Amino acid sequence: MSSDSTPNLSILEIVQQCNSMPSADILISTGNYYRFLFDDSVIGIVSSADIAALETACSQQETSRYPVVFEFNHLEKTLRFSAALSNSESRSDAVAELLARMRAEDSWASLAKWRNELYPIYAPTGDTNRVVAMVERASSYNFGIRTYGVHINGIVSGSDGVQRMWVGKRAATKQTWPGYLDQIVAGGIGNGMGVRESVIKECYEEGGIPESISQGARAAGTIQYFTRSVLGLQPETQYVYDLELPLDFVPKPTDGEVEEFYLWTIDQVVDNVRRNLFKPNCALCIIDFLIRRGYLTPENEPDYIEIIQNIHSALPFPGPK
Amino acid sequence: MSSDSTPNLSILEIVQQCNSMPSADILISTGNYYRFLFDDSVIGIVSSADIAALETACSQQETSRYPVVFEFNHLEKTLRFSAALSNSESRSDAVAELLARMRAEDSWASLAKWRNELYPIYAPTGDTNRVVAMVERASSYNFGIRTYGVHINGIVSGSDGVQRMWVGKRAATKQTWPGYLDQIVAGGIGNGMGVRESVIKECYEEGGIPESISQGARAAGTIQYFTRSVLGLQPETQYVYDLELPLDFVPKPTDGEVEEFYLWTIDQVVDNVRRNLFKPNCALCIIDFLIRRGYLTPENEPDYIEIIQNIHSALPFPGPK
Repeated sequence: MSSDSTPNLSILEIVQQCNSMPSADILISTGNYYRFLFDDSVIGIVSSADIAALETACSQQETSRYPVVFEFNHLEKTLRFSAALSNSESRSDAVAELLARMRAEDSWASLAKWRNELYPIYAPTGDTNRVVAMVERASSYNFGIRTYGVHINGIVSGSDGVQRMWVGKRAATKQTWPGYLDQIVAGGIGNGMGVRESVIKECYEEGGIPESISQGARAAGTIQYFTRSVLGLQPETQYVYDLELPLDFVPKPTDGEVEEFYLWTIDQVVDNVRRNLFKPNCALCIIDFLIRRGYLTPENEPDYIEIIQNIHSALPFPGPK
Repeated sequence: MSSDSTPNLSILEIVQQCNSMPSADILISTGNYYRFLFDDSVIGIVSSADIAALETACSQQETSRYPVVFEFNHLEKTLRFSAALSNSESRSDAVAELLARMRAEDSWASLAKWRNELYPIYAPTGDTNRVVAMVERASSYNFGIRTYGVHINGIVSGSDGVQRMWVGKRAATKQTWPGYLDQIVAGGIGNGMGVRESVIKECYEEGGIPESISQGARAAGTIQYFTRSVLGLQPETQYVYDLELPLDFVPKPTDGEVEEFYLWTIDQVVDNVRRNLFKPNCALCIIDFLIRRGYLTPENEPDYIEIIQNIHSALPFPGPK
């Protein structure tokens, strides 16, 4: 325990707090979840409680343009889009209309945090129609679909040879993880945006980083984990970027999502990771950085192999191709 | 196809050639494999043919110090160390004696390539006796146990701003993958050696790299895959290191394992990877480097996410702690 009694966890414990869910197969075997299927591939996983609320909402669709949106099979515990919805556009439209009503009726609590961002559900590899549907971000946790984002490590290489990292403190008003520590910039990829495009956009919106600087962001891999937050299930992939920032650059909170930025040594960052003060997936991204850059090694970290496995979990749902 | 008709494969195809085996559970479900168990944890996977030869050899142990080495259960298709062997030393001794005879009698073809290197079999996490046994490296493919090694990327940052990589060509006399391209230095971790110790040792033995240079090797993570070579099953973890080499350093083959070294641009390296001229796990290590260093990106590599998943496969056997 550190002096102020904040818990000091091992890096593996921090990683497992984020990659906390067992495999989809194990969840299904509990009997409390439904498979969300497309072409017999699992594209999501939905709790029985959410299925019940969804079915109730679907039963009130008579007057809608889309009287049947989903097919429920309670014997096999599966959810499918209605076969009457034959393409990505009609499925997206039908779900949008249904979710808008479910939001108004408070059918799924998560819909109170409506984002106005559409997230893609990908079809199995080889399917010619790659996007099954686009759905409101707030519903992704209920459908248990794979989601994607970008996380950017903002690095400063000091003239003293010491590497530092910019860390953001999330605003107290954030919908998720208020007050927790964060990367300098991170965000979900919605609305059909490209990965690099998202990096440039989030850098500007979250950190006031102009494109002249953010264009130097370098792709460094992905992290993947299957987590559950207060909102629901999240099988997530984050594209990881490192961005070397000029010594004299100071990030500015521009969209109110960040309260303050700190420039910390790697030791300070690690200390705060282990005190559990970072948003869990940001901690994962930092730990990936520590491994790639040789701060964590097989010599100084007994759980080295297990940590790396946990930040690269296989997610058994189709992804972008 | 390139001009000399060598196949030009995608990076994902190259990666899947190495990470080629389905999960241990799927192998077991074919009915052609036995689980190798310790304390009810799977520590390896053995083909039915290898089990038959092993049982025959075990039946001729009467005059040995260890009359019973293994217990076979053909109904449950499991292999276990005899309960009479109560510690790591007795299990290691008994297996060594048994394998020596099996080598003389040509019971397992792989034993012809005897290495005189002992590889550890790890006990499940939490077991106080962490090493179940040490076994001859040549038998690891038959027991289907997890193995460990180090792979080192030898990098030269040119004064022209261009990064180059040293590549070795394996000697025509190598027991495995003769004539294939390789990292500047790579090797298995045997005989209870530490990871960093193995890096220093292999750098000297394989590339003539003095410790004054090799001590600069920087840990950069691991790659994991489940492959099958002519020798048998290999669920393997490689500790990955990057080593920046001085501009004027030229590696020297010292132990006859490397025929020649080349200093190539990253483009030349990628071209040879895609022409399938690298030893498969070396290609994986290079691809990991290309991802970490931003040569492969979500923009220029359509299979980005799947490639990263394939170089970080979960291996369902216990590892070092």
